[in-house]
Amino acid sequence: MDLWYTENHQEDTKFSIKVQEHIHSEKSEFQQIDFFRSETFGTFFTLDGYMMVTEKDEFIYHDMITHVSMAVNPNIKKVLIIGGGDGGTAREVLRYPGVEVVDMVEIDERVVRLCQQYLPLTASKLDQDNRLTLYFEDGLKFVQEADEGYYDLILVDSTDPIGPGEGLFTVAFYNNCKRVLSEEGILINQHESPYYASYAHEMKRAHSKIKETFPISKVYQFHMPTYPSGHWLFGFASKKYDPIKDIKADEWNKLGIETKYYNTDLHVGCFMLPTYVKKQLDNEE
Amino acid sequence: MDLWYTENHQEDTKFSIKVQEHIHSEKSEFQQIDFFRSETFGTFFTLDGYMMVTEKDEFIYHDMITHVSMAVNPNIKKVLIIGGGDGGTAREVLRYPGVEVVDMVEIDERVVRLCQQYLPLTASKLDQDNRLTLYFEDGLKFVQEADEGYYDLILVDSTDPIGPGEGLFTVAFYNNCKRVLSEEGILINQHESPYYASYAHEMKRAHSKIKETFPISKVYQFHMPTYPSGHWLFGFASKKYDPIKDIKADEWNKLGIETKYYNTDLHVGCFMLPTYVKKQLDNEE
Repeated sequence: MDLWYTENHQEDTKFSIKVQEHIHSEKSEFQQIDFFRSETFGTFFTLDGYMMVTEKDEFIYHDMITHVSMAVNPNIKKVLIIGGGDGGTAREVLRYPGVEVVDMVEIDERVVRLCQQYLPLTASKLDQDNRLTLYFEDGLKFVQEADEGYYDLILVDSTDPIGPGEGLFTVAFYNNCKRVLSEEGILINQHESPYYASYAHEMKRAHSKIKETFPISKVYQFHMPTYPSGHWLFGFASKKYDPIKDIKADEWNKLGIETKYYNTDLHVGCFMLPTYVKKQLDNEE
Repeated sequence: MDLWYTENHQEDTKFSIKVQEHIHSEKSEFQQIDFFRSETFGTFFTLDGYMMVTEKDEFIYHDMITHVSMAVNPNIKKVLIIGGGDGGTAREVLRYPGVEVVDMVEIDERVVRLCQQYLPLTASKLDQDNRLTLYFEDGLKFVQEADEGYYDLILVDSTDPIGPGEGLFTVAFYNNCKRVLSEEGILINQHESPYYASYAHEMKRAHSKIKETFPISKVYQFHMPTYPSGHWLFGFASKKYDPIKDIKADEWNKLGIETKYYNTDLHVGCFMLPTYVKKQLDNEE
């Protein structure tokens, strides 16, 4: 028997992975959760059928959501992670000895529990570090109620802006992020993709909102082969730091944090976007 | 009826596009050639079932194979294109008024003729510019017989190193490229991909050969969504030019060549590779 997982990247474009085992399937309060095992990608899981994390390329996503901000401000102490139930983002943040507080707000506790069970590669640090506090709450509500100026860094590790992730792409959310960030504060958000029309639409919407909220708002790219088109983006927004001019490359490299994707040259390179992406972000096309 | 084109990126990984029409199918002397039409990608064609060119993202590949070298040496006059039967590389090269000679050596005349018929977006310049000469020959043989030091630029726009493209990944070929290049000479080659094991293997093999042949040998990356993993590479090799230190950004920008993917910031950025790719290229993993 052949068993294939398929994601429709567009209505007429499919990406499929042969499945060795459908490890787990359940409908939580918020979404459909499935875990699979494949030869090429190892264990991977999907939410509502959309690819979230594979063992083969999770290092790319988690390197890029975390280390860019930490190299701009290696003195970050208080971090808020919104989403990120697989634990990979928390794992990377917790590698910094200077980080004192990590609050992780994941709406769906089942994602965390299942990743702890099936994806120890990403989730194993979630119960091993007393700097981390897990909140199973709505991220939008959490930032509404958080103290002004408390966090140095917010990492929005969300799904696409449909389903539970929708509120994390709103002006209300971005405004609250700005409010709870310190003057040194940096916001990194999952910024969708420029290639397929439906994703590019969400990318433009998100960027126009963040651009209005933060004085500095840039976008950086990376190669994420298991996401639609493989061309994925994060947003970097801050009150005072420019991600390129203000990189502390020497300071970051002295920390000795070994990474498989990120490095401080790539840090600069990843903000150099293709012309068609720049035009989309500037609303010129 | 649903008709889907599928390419196996690995044995257990498939990419599929819904086909509106299978426009053409033939077996040439060298390979199986198929043309299709799809809603998202427009017209696309495959050789031996492997995706070559789609109307949607050909600009990415052709921008990146051409403009990086031209921005390093805007005085390039004599260009050799090996492969590139779709005509997209020739189209981009011929946009430079300073280019005097373009010799294009494609082993399979049928690819050129069919692209002229079905892909005018890439092929339409192939019979419109008297600076261009088409040779339907083996590229390996052509460079063996070409004059020493004649070309300023060689663009190897080849298929993967199986089938007709195999000879273009050999030491004999790279040595002949070096011989027929001028002292200002630059070689750009299709450099495969770092993500899936089978492609990474070919990437490493190609790089180790070129590194031994040319004093300067770098690799740059781009996002090519219809190729396996979407993470694709070109090699930049030369006798004296460093692709970053020697970029003539102002001079290139003054030419006023409009591009959808390439720009002189991206030029610098695209050489900043992920750590795991650098390690593979340095034979450290």
